Amino acid sequence: MSAHEVVATYLIETYLPLSQAAEAIAGEQSTGTFTAVARETPELRERFAARVVSIEELPPTGNPDLPGATHPTPTVATTAGASPEVKRSARVRVAFGLDNFGPSLPNLLAAVAGNLFELRQLAGIRLLDLDLPAPFAERYPGPRFGVRGTRELLDRPDGVLLGTIVKPSIGLPPEELRLVVRELAEAGIDFIKDDELMGNPPHSPLADRVAVVTEELDKVAARTGRRPMYAFNITDDLDRMAANHDLVRASGGTCVMVCVNLVGFTGLAWLRERCALPIHGHRAMTGVYTRAPQLGIDYVAWSKLARLAGADHLHTNGLSNKFYETDEEVLRSITAVRTPLLGGYETLPVLSSGQTPGLAPETYRRTNTTDLLVLAGGGIHGHPSGPSAGVAAMRAAWSATTSGTNLTTAASQHPALQQALQKFGHGRG
Amino acid sequence: MSAHEVVATYLIETYLPLSQAAEAIAGEQSTGTFTAVARETPELRERFAARVVSIEELPPTGNPDLPGATHPTPTVATTAGASPEVKRSARVRVAFGLDNFGPSLPNLLAAVAGNLFELRQLAGIRLLDLDLPAPFAERYPGPRFGVRGTRELLDRPDGVLLGTIVKPSIGLPPEELRLVVRELAEAGIDFIKDDELMGNPPHSPLADRVAVVTEELDKVAARTGRRPMYAFNITDDLDRMAANHDLVRASGGTCVMVCVNLVGFTGLAWLRERCALPIHGHRAMTGVYTRAPQLGIDYVAWSKLARLAGADHLHTNGLSNKFYETDEEVLRSITAVRTPLLGGYETLPVLSSGQTPGLAPETYRRTNTTDLLVLAGGGIHGHPSGPSAGVAAMRAAWSATTSGTNLTTAASQHPALQQALQKFGHGRG
Repeated sequence: MSAHEVVATYLIETYLPLSQAAEAIAGEQSTGTFTAVARETPELRERFAARVVSIEELPPTGNPDLPGATHPTPTVATTAGASPEVKRSARVRVAFGLDNFGPSLPNLLAAVAGNLFELRQLAGIRLLDLDLPAPFAERYPGPRFGVRGTRELLDRPDGVLLGTIVKPSIGLPPEELRLVVRELAEAGIDFIKDDELMGNPPHSPLADRVAVVTEELDKVAARTGRRPMYAFNITDDLDRMAANHDLVRASGGTCVMVCVNLVGFTGLAWLRERCALPIHGHRAMTGVYTRAPQLGIDYVAWSKLARLAGADHLHTNGLSNKFYETDEEVLRSITAVRTPLLGGYETLPVLSSGQTPGLAPETYRRTNTTDLLVLAGGGIHGHPSGPSAGVAAMRAAWSATTSGTNLTTAASQHPALQQALQKFGHGRG
Repeated sequence: MSAHEVVATYLIETYLPLSQAAEAIAGEQSTGTFTAVARETPELRERFAARVVSIEELPPTGNPDLPGATHPTPTVATTAGASPEVKRSARVRVAFGLDNFGPSLPNLLAAVAGNLFELRQLAGIRLLDLDLPAPFAERYPGPRFGVRGTRELLDRPDGVLLGTIVKPSIGLPPEELRLVVRELAEAGIDFIKDDELMGNPPHSPLADRVAVVTEELDKVAARTGRRPMYAFNITDDLDRMAANHDLVRASGGTCVMVCVNLVGFTGLAWLRERCALPIHGHRAMTGVYTRAPQLGIDYVAWSKLARLAGADHLHTNGLSNKFYETDEEVLRSITAVRTPLLGGYETLPVLSSGQTPGLAPETYRRTNTTDLLVLAGGGIHGHPSGPSAGVAAMRAAWSATTSGTNLTTAASQHPALQQALQKFGHGRG
């Protein structure tokens, strides 16, 4: 690929000839307007126009049409015997000169996403992927810690990293949070995070949470030699977010959580410049981009932007999760996060939502890696014998899985695992 | 409405009982998880759980289903004679205690949008509107200039404000931009803006554009006494965006343009704190939220967030635009922007895309206001006698319209209008 262009890959669906629809994207997103204008010379178009690189027709998707899609006007001659209108689908690649916008995430988005979701020529339009040239790597340093840095901070050189979300999601007073954190940390969990709903609310200010959590983690570390990472949700208006980070850091915290979509890629990149801790990237609101099959931005493209902007960890959902995504989609997201980007940008995939010990064997079989942060919220806090047993059950399930022991055998040695499997089920439950 | 809660209005579609689907939103977005957990006391739920305020069933929408939507499992007893599954649609209002997140735009979004687009219980989910309590007005000052401030800067106390976009969208060298701006300014245009594709690219650095544009505007102002507002697109990574603003301001510029979605509401609110000029809010990428009927965020909700964050002007599209929206949708957006929010937040609607002189009568009849900024890009630059005649034609069309003269009559006095109507059509073309 040229070092001087960005190639965007789209799924398009259209009732027009595929080439016409593809050219509509290239035109709208570079030199075009709806009518010829003064000074739009052939030389200018040659230098700045986006270029359709390839059009690969796909079998019909069955996706619904977007409203407002243009249908070709039948001519008088063809109306009588015309065949029904046909919607075609294609994977289209469009190249944009980097000189059109420079290596800037927001200005990139103006070109590769901008107005094109509104084009009448398209009955379906999804941004699937982005091939970015080296100048983006020069502008955006990306994850400061990634997989290796997170493992070093945790002193866990191998094995799956196990974590949980504080539950209940919101409303827990700091002094009760203290007890939850104490129990989880003593049970040997690697990672604890705030729920994305818990920011800096009046009823439980971040400063109070930071104080009790770091105090408890320090105590547990002094006793056990292991200090879990706690991801404080610092998501907020930007200056407040930076102040939240500084507070966490000054108190000895070792991780911050940011809801990527809620502060934007630009907000994340801005924080990255000021941030000394791993950034746990939460995906809240990603569904608005991904769930409509005929419109949106695929996780593959989305996650590249989040990694460039500096996410050390990135939520992918987990197998058998409680949300809409299929296992195949989740696995594709995990692969996306783990695939090197511009030669680096190592980010740790975070498997979350409805995770239980019984899912360990299938998760390991299908991802074939332990470079995963697996979060069980209800799957730990809802354990019949409490969160401590929940942690033990998750650890036993993953130890068994990676050493080739099946869970039924392992459960006979681990009552906590036995209980968890009874409550939450084996594998797909 | 309570000063202590936010009420979000959704369009939901579901195969489950409506009340069950509505409760799924309230649960996921506040205290719920997929299983009962320790410390989730009735008192905690009572205080922090979101509350379904109302469920208003709607006629079937005909919208496609989202993937992954749950269908009720038929029981053995009912399978034989079961009626086909029915999808129901409803307008649902859910109240969230402000104490759950405080008056913070990103933390608000975690609650009212967050994970809910991914819920299996929903076959369709759109955030339609938000009722926000007074503490948001205390945190977010909103537009500094709005309609009145923009009119004052322009010395145009009444009448529609007329503007254009520099065309070609990208690639124009600064010295040619100078000529375009000179011609438009001399023709008496009120407002000129960069295309959203033109940020701070290597081939035409913002600093060079600011230099030539402000020099030209100063010269024209010295000759004519009128200085158009030029909205420089300062969209960029945040520190660069702030520096771009400072450059524009230091050079005597009077407006900056920001692509709201590309820097996020938080990026816009952050700029607002540092910004001394009107912020022209571009809507690039809004289509990804609005166009899928079964998923997303309606312009009504979106525009409230953009106004809180500080947009003085906000793009609504115009009638008969080249994009997918119907005139009814555009009119609803214009009304949304003009409706007072928390007693203020006066923002100027910007009508753009495919605008021509012939659309003036219908636009005026249906909006019943001249508090509009009407932008014609191709409709001015593509005028057969050039941009200057394009400006004259737009001005003549709007003068005639607001004084009750029909365009055909007016055109007989104004050759430029005559030409424009011949080329671009009367009204709906």
